[in-house]
Amino acid sequence: MKVHNFFAGPAILPQPVINQAAKAMINFEGMNLSILEISHRSKQFEAVMNKAVSLVKELLSLNDDYEVLFLTGGASSQFYFTAMNLLDDGETASYLDTGTWSTKAIAEAKRFGNVEVVASSKDKNFNYIPKNYSVPANSKYLHLTSNNTIYGTQLHQLPATEVPIVCDMSSDIFSRPIDSNKYGLIYCGAQKNMGPAGTTLVIVNKNMLGKVKREIPTMLNYETHIKKNSSFNTPPVYAIYVSMLTMQWVKDNGGLKAMAKRNQAKADLLYGEIDRNPMFVGSAAKEDRSLMNVTFLLKDDSKNDAFLEACAAANCVGVKGHRSVGGFRASIYNAMPIESVEVLVEVMRKFEG
Amino acid sequence: MKVHNFFAGPAILPQPVINQAAKAMINFEGMNLSILEISHRSKQFEAVMNKAVSLVKELLSLNDDYEVLFLTGGASSQFYFTAMNLLDDGETASYLDTGTWSTKAIAEAKRFGNVEVVASSKDKNFNYIPKNYSVPANSKYLHLTSNNTIYGTQLHQLPATEVPIVCDMSSDIFSRPIDSNKYGLIYCGAQKNMGPAGTTLVIVNKNMLGKVKREIPTMLNYETHIKKNSSFNTPPVYAIYVSMLTMQWVKDNGGLKAMAKRNQAKADLLYGEIDRNPMFVGSAAKEDRSLMNVTFLLKDDSKNDAFLEACAAANCVGVKGHRSVGGFRASIYNAMPIESVEVLVEVMRKFEG
Repeated sequence: MKVHNFFAGPAILPQPVINQAAKAMINFEGMNLSILEISHRSKQFEAVMNKAVSLVKELLSLNDDYEVLFLTGGASSQFYFTAMNLLDDGETASYLDTGTWSTKAIAEAKRFGNVEVVASSKDKNFNYIPKNYSVPANSKYLHLTSNNTIYGTQLHQLPATEVPIVCDMSSDIFSRPIDSNKYGLIYCGAQKNMGPAGTTLVIVNKNMLGKVKREIPTMLNYETHIKKNSSFNTPPVYAIYVSMLTMQWVKDNGGLKAMAKRNQAKADLLYGEIDRNPMFVGSAAKEDRSLMNVTFLLKDDSKNDAFLEACAAANCVGVKGHRSVGGFRASIYNAMPIESVEVLVEVMRKFEG
Repeated sequence: MKVHNFFAGPAILPQPVINQAAKAMINFEGMNLSILEISHRSKQFEAVMNKAVSLVKELLSLNDDYEVLFLTGGASSQFYFTAMNLLDDGETASYLDTGTWSTKAIAEAKRFGNVEVVASSKDKNFNYIPKNYSVPANSKYLHLTSNNTIYGTQLHQLPATEVPIVCDMSSDIFSRPIDSNKYGLIYCGAQKNMGPAGTTLVIVNKNMLGKVKREIPTMLNYETHIKKNSSFNTPPVYAIYVSMLTMQWVKDNGGLKAMAKRNQAKADLLYGEIDRNPMFVGSAAKEDRSLMNVTFLLKDDSKNDAFLEACAAANCVGVKGHRSVGGFRASIYNAMPIESVEVLVEVMRKFEG
């Protein structure tokens, strides 16, 4: 029986990707070897890496100023990595505080320079995205979290500023077209909308680099990895391969415009039911609702366990909300078919009785 | 036709491990989901992590002072990570220089404290392991590389010192029993003898930690990962799973004593042919020969291409030597069956003509 996978991450991947990646575990590119057993210097893996890089550039329409890296350590490592490489002692970077991950990024950046928190939605448990703040013109960058997985909020418009944006796109990369020229650096853990756990995508405008005076360990310097096409040391071969397949699937299915349309349709269906069904209420401000992570509550929370049981009975998994928000969260990333959202909506309708 | 996989890393894995890992790609633990699609907080993955940790402890007979971590970034990241966490400004650490990887570890450690290089085999292109050096008693630790993948040398005896040893065991972890109490910290990239590329094993004696005064970013502090059982952020789920399966295979096949015996038999067979066959010569000093990476040369190197062609014709892949040494290298890790070594030896015999 088909499972409807609403996990927040690691999360659903396209079934054709899973099938091809499983085959490559046994026999990759006709080598009669598993992809896990081949050299990262083999021409077969170099082709995977080059394809992964070119798909990122193509899907996001990046110009030649941008370098694409596949690193490790997750977005949590980029919290310090970005500041270490971009922000010198005494310089200022601006941060928008929209939840747990922004807050952690702020804490790590403070080790390296001055941090200006331009606005925060902490006053309402991060259930909205602050607007109408000003960004100091002397900021080296403005750090944003484009989608807040825990709270179900998403930035639908970039602030008007000339300051280059550094953005944690872990949970909505490749979910919609972006204006890539506005970004100095984009990073994301792969395991939500790009691939499996185990690799971290970094897209950096070369003009941002080489400007800090501090000494940086070799492996923590973006320039090390740029010079070696992410193969200075052994990269996470399989995670990059599966990410490449997933990006190819995005391209084959119409690219980011088509993804945005599908994602909007899925979100409309689910938010529509949340707003229609008198038992439920959405937990994020309507204008800031995420198209990736839909958070909602039962007005009578004594029925929470019963609703989760109803979800389980319909084979909907991963619907329990994050402890910071409570209630429910349905993550409906690119790979989620609308049919699974329809099943969840049906569970909600039946639960109304 | 079966491929005989002599790649240095990523390298051969046991076939039963490959088969089980491929099945988990489609349906993990009866969940009807790929292991790539499930939460790292699920009880199913937590069981994998706990099993991986307990297998490390059991195989290496670690006492309760040792913590086991599954991180990312490779041994190359541990070069700075170890010094950043263990060596304070003004303190001294000793390093034995046995090749490229030691040399890189030395360069990174110098950013954090005083580095005393106790001995080096650079004078002979690292074809031997220095002995009879003394280790300054005030050293915080002595850093060793237990096996030098590129040069085909291996430490067969630890130096007599009371200083705790920090050891890069990337290419011979789990290949033989070790006296674990001598080690303050052990690290290794998984992709040679432990699993696939994508995770880095760190074993640390808790008594080594918490003694430096510098401020350390959250993700670069071993204590962060100890407190959260390597799940402070999303760990590299699949690489840890396949490593766990590989360690289970080691245990099921007799543990480290049995591995050492098998590895000795394979190495004896191959070194025996190198020493017998008048066309070949070993490139490492006999007493320091590695049981994992067997390096050898043709006395007439104009025949190199012809020998590689003969290897390819017998389906032996990955035999070309590293450019720093030239000639040939056959990596014969735990998972390498003696039958594959027999095939390579037969190629060498026929090549003699």
